[in-house]
Amino acid sequence: MMDTPLLLTSFLKRAERYYPEKQIISRTSPTMTHRIPYKDYVKRTRKLADALTKLGMKHGTKVGSFAWNHHRHLEAYFAVPCAGAILHMINIRLAPEHIIYVINHAEDEIILIDGDLFPLFEKAIPYLKTVKHIIVMQDDFNVPESTFENVYSYEQLLADASEDFEFPEDLDENTPAGMCYTSATTGMPKGVVYTHRSLVLHSITLGLADTLGLCEKDTIMPVVPMFHVNAWGMPFAAVNFGTTQVLPGPMFTPAILLDLIEQEKVTTTAGVPTIWLGVLQEQEKNPRDLSSLRGIVCGGSASPKGLIRAFEQKLGIPFIVGYGMTETSPVVSLSNYTTAMEDLDYENKLNIRATQGLTVPLIESEVVNENGPVPWDGTTMGELRLRGPWIAKEYYKDERTSEAFRDGWLYTGDIAVLTTDGYIKITDRTKDLIKSGGEWISSVDLENALMTHPAVFEAAVIAIPHEKWQERPLACVVLKEGANATKEELIDSLEGQFAKWWLPDDVVFLNEIPKTSVGKFLKAKLRDELKGYELKI
Amino acid sequence: MMDTPLLLTSFLKRAERYYPEKQIISRTSPTMTHRIPYKDYVKRTRKLADALTKLGMKHGTKVGSFAWNHHRHLEAYFAVPCAGAILHMINIRLAPEHIIYVINHAEDEIILIDGDLFPLFEKAIPYLKTVKHIIVMQDDFNVPESTFENVYSYEQLLADASEDFEFPEDLDENTPAGMCYTSATTGMPKGVVYTHRSLVLHSITLGLADTLGLCEKDTIMPVVPMFHVNAWGMPFAAVNFGTTQVLPGPMFTPAILLDLIEQEKVTTTAGVPTIWLGVLQEQEKNPRDLSSLRGIVCGGSASPKGLIRAFEQKLGIPFIVGYGMTETSPVVSLSNYTTAMEDLDYENKLNIRATQGLTVPLIESEVVNENGPVPWDGTTMGELRLRGPWIAKEYYKDERTSEAFRDGWLYTGDIAVLTTDGYIKITDRTKDLIKSGGEWISSVDLENALMTHPAVFEAAVIAIPHEKWQERPLACVVLKEGANATKEELIDSLEGQFAKWWLPDDVVFLNEIPKTSVGKFLKAKLRDELKGYELKI
Repeated sequence: MMDTPLLLTSFLKRAERYYPEKQIISRTSPTMTHRIPYKDYVKRTRKLADALTKLGMKHGTKVGSFAWNHHRHLEAYFAVPCAGAILHMINIRLAPEHIIYVINHAEDEIILIDGDLFPLFEKAIPYLKTVKHIIVMQDDFNVPESTFENVYSYEQLLADASEDFEFPEDLDENTPAGMCYTSATTGMPKGVVYTHRSLVLHSITLGLADTLGLCEKDTIMPVVPMFHVNAWGMPFAAVNFGTTQVLPGPMFTPAILLDLIEQEKVTTTAGVPTIWLGVLQEQEKNPRDLSSLRGIVCGGSASPKGLIRAFEQKLGIPFIVGYGMTETSPVVSLSNYTTAMEDLDYENKLNIRATQGLTVPLIESEVVNENGPVPWDGTTMGELRLRGPWIAKEYYKDERTSEAFRDGWLYTGDIAVLTTDGYIKITDRTKDLIKSGGEWISSVDLENALMTHPAVFEAAVIAIPHEKWQERPLACVVLKEGANATKEELIDSLEGQFAKWWLPDDVVFLNEIPKTSVGKFLKAKLRDELKGYELKI
Repeated sequence: MMDTPLLLTSFLKRAERYYPEKQIISRTSPTMTHRIPYKDYVKRTRKLADALTKLGMKHGTKVGSFAWNHHRHLEAYFAVPCAGAILHMINIRLAPEHIIYVINHAEDEIILIDGDLFPLFEKAIPYLKTVKHIIVMQDDFNVPESTFENVYSYEQLLADASEDFEFPEDLDENTPAGMCYTSATTGMPKGVVYTHRSLVLHSITLGLADTLGLCEKDTIMPVVPMFHVNAWGMPFAAVNFGTTQVLPGPMFTPAILLDLIEQEKVTTTAGVPTIWLGVLQEQEKNPRDLSSLRGIVCGGSASPKGLIRAFEQKLGIPFIVGYGMTETSPVVSLSNYTTAMEDLDYENKLNIRATQGLTVPLIESEVVNENGPVPWDGTTMGELRLRGPWIAKEYYKDERTSEAFRDGWLYTGDIAVLTTDGYIKITDRTKDLIKSGGEWISSVDLENALMTHPAVFEAAVIAIPHEKWQERPLACVVLKEGANATKEELIDSLEGQFAKWWLPDDVVFLNEIPKTSVGKFLKAKLRDELKGYELKI
């Protein structure tokens, strides 16, 4: 067989050749919606590659992006790797010292940055050691004032560039294409490098009828940021399949997302649970026509059953939970139903939907404890480990590699059980698990149950040190606007669902749960804030 | 990223792990239907690998199969390559001297053969130079009498083998996994070797929502033989997706196929046009419930529009035309509709369906003539050339490689045009094209038009040498049972559809069109038989 390399370039050529009129729709500012057909998108991508090459981009050069979801960011998604360089998608929500760290650690030479993010970024500039050029992405040719010398207008560079730039077709498929850093809960972020091969295989998998079935007929809106694990790989896949893309741009709100779904007839969208909690609240207040939606994909942290039920039962929209990490490109599993599950009643189906789902083809997963792989019983906990062609084998130039990558597996640090169908159900992070009297209590299970209570908006459960039991669970709850519930009511609501010794010893009411830059509960911070809290019930 | 190889073994492990209860249903004889769940199928596959290993199968050993579509053949599909050996799927319809040639040329050491095919095969045995063992596949433990010493019962070997056989997981993904020989129109058959990588990528592609969307919910019936280009890759893909498989076994008829569709609720099936012509006739006489079918895939030769229309309009079953060759694993293109086509009227949609379709992801196609790639105008003809990760780069140990494989492309020998949407439309084989007065006439276009005539069952158009025009078209027609039509009526029916000089100069009525072992019109034979025919109209 021909040794044709698996390259992202083939996606770009496919969109150009077969889907020239399909659209990329970007909300580039609160008042602007920008539309571009793929044929012009590919021309601009070639121009960007030409412009970057003229600025010194070579094979292996790291180009950082610091941007929202829009067509320019999508141009960088292909222009940089298809030219043989590496796109470093910088998480704009990192703390300033982390932003400085990741750029210096990756050795980015060129930064592509949104105009509205420039003020946030500028303070970091004096500390950047390798950056030679900064390119400002906005609708006009202006560049902000800066003490940094080489600041360019993205649109000016493109205006001066050639659309005849030819991407090399002889790259090795293992050539690095992109990189992201994980937001570590302690220490500096850890870098993960994606290759053409891993991104191509991951993208193709998103088109399988048994995963997301992403296809030409779809209109996809990745709400998950493009600076967060390749926006779950969707922009890459969408270019390959000629899928219409709706990119929601900067500072969107639930109302903006709902308007985009209604106006652009979005068929599939993806984001973290907190996004969908907000969207649900807004939709209940001010309903839009969501009949175009064939599914919502939700990942990043556990989806409360109440959230899934509301979307599926009230709004009639399939709500598919997925699992993945920066280290896994990210899609590892999805909570789709198999044939045998189709006839279950809704409560049983909901139990399946709320898991992290079935491992996708080409990826191998195992849940292991000290006795080896755990039985498929839905109760025996172990650590989830993964391997496959889009699972990282290391952190980029980082001594912490050996903590997570052992024996040919990625140890995820997630505690899981396997259901009787082999679906993965994450019960906790290794670090968040509550160890009470030698037994394990899943903080996530308790949180999910609390979040089905009608008065609860968000809930996080953390371990509080305990003299007798070593650790005991404490529930941290944010009530819905105007809702009321007592500690006792909340704990009572959990009875019958869990063994008695699992029930939280106390509840604290908070105005919000601290979150990571990607919307996950920051339990380390909660534990820190509540250190020394005395359990009262 | 991990350098996890792409191996068929991952498919087998997936079926075993996630789809243990899904079924493989085989018609093993005219009276037997055999059902086996994947969990037992995988056990038997391990046993087969163990048994073959005990007989001396090593990495790289060629194991020939000479068999219909059934679960034992499917066991060989995985047991042989997953153990690092190579399954040579021998076309049972080859002429005896070709069967001897391919086995000797491939250097098969072990042959897996169906009991009912043994008499056909036995005459070849004295001429086989490398075969050490013959294993007879049938429901019982019997073996036929033979002068060949090492003849074994498949079921006996499995009964004596271990189900704990472990497939190696460290094979290089470019390890050869299978081979097929093309039935060349002249000379000996030419061998094509498939690798684990090529078969994995091809299989995954069959699951894309934009190709066949093969998935767990499907029940697939490959009518295309498993000795013919991997049964178009469907058995491999189905194991990966946990798809229910219906394998129609030996000597099936249209009635048997229709019964299987009805009884087993087949959702997708695939075969050559002659199969579907027969099925259509039978369904019109004696209708079955075909409501489970979501699509028929048709390839191998051009599908007459009348056939497509009958399935789509009368029976309500989408009829998707595909294109591929032994050299291409085989799926290259499929005539699915894009969003923009959904609103066309049926006649325009039919024109699209009847093309060979849109090239699938990861494969690159071009139609080139002496001026380079042809425009997308639907009329300019050129030769179709292909490249991609499941396109062969050579014929196995064959000097004819350089005829077809040049400049990194496979030259298909098929003459095609590209529609305005970029869909491939095969107009002829290079060798069948009619060159009249310096212009090209497509024999296939004329045949397709003739086959829409209500009296015509089959039609082939061939070139007859002509003094003035060099070549002129002659139509060879088989009328439907009981139907009547004159030469003049048939030629008149083509007027208006083609330029006047395209119309056949004459029509001969035949009882049947000679066909290749895989059901394609054997025009070389027709030309031979009609050599010296004097055009009379």
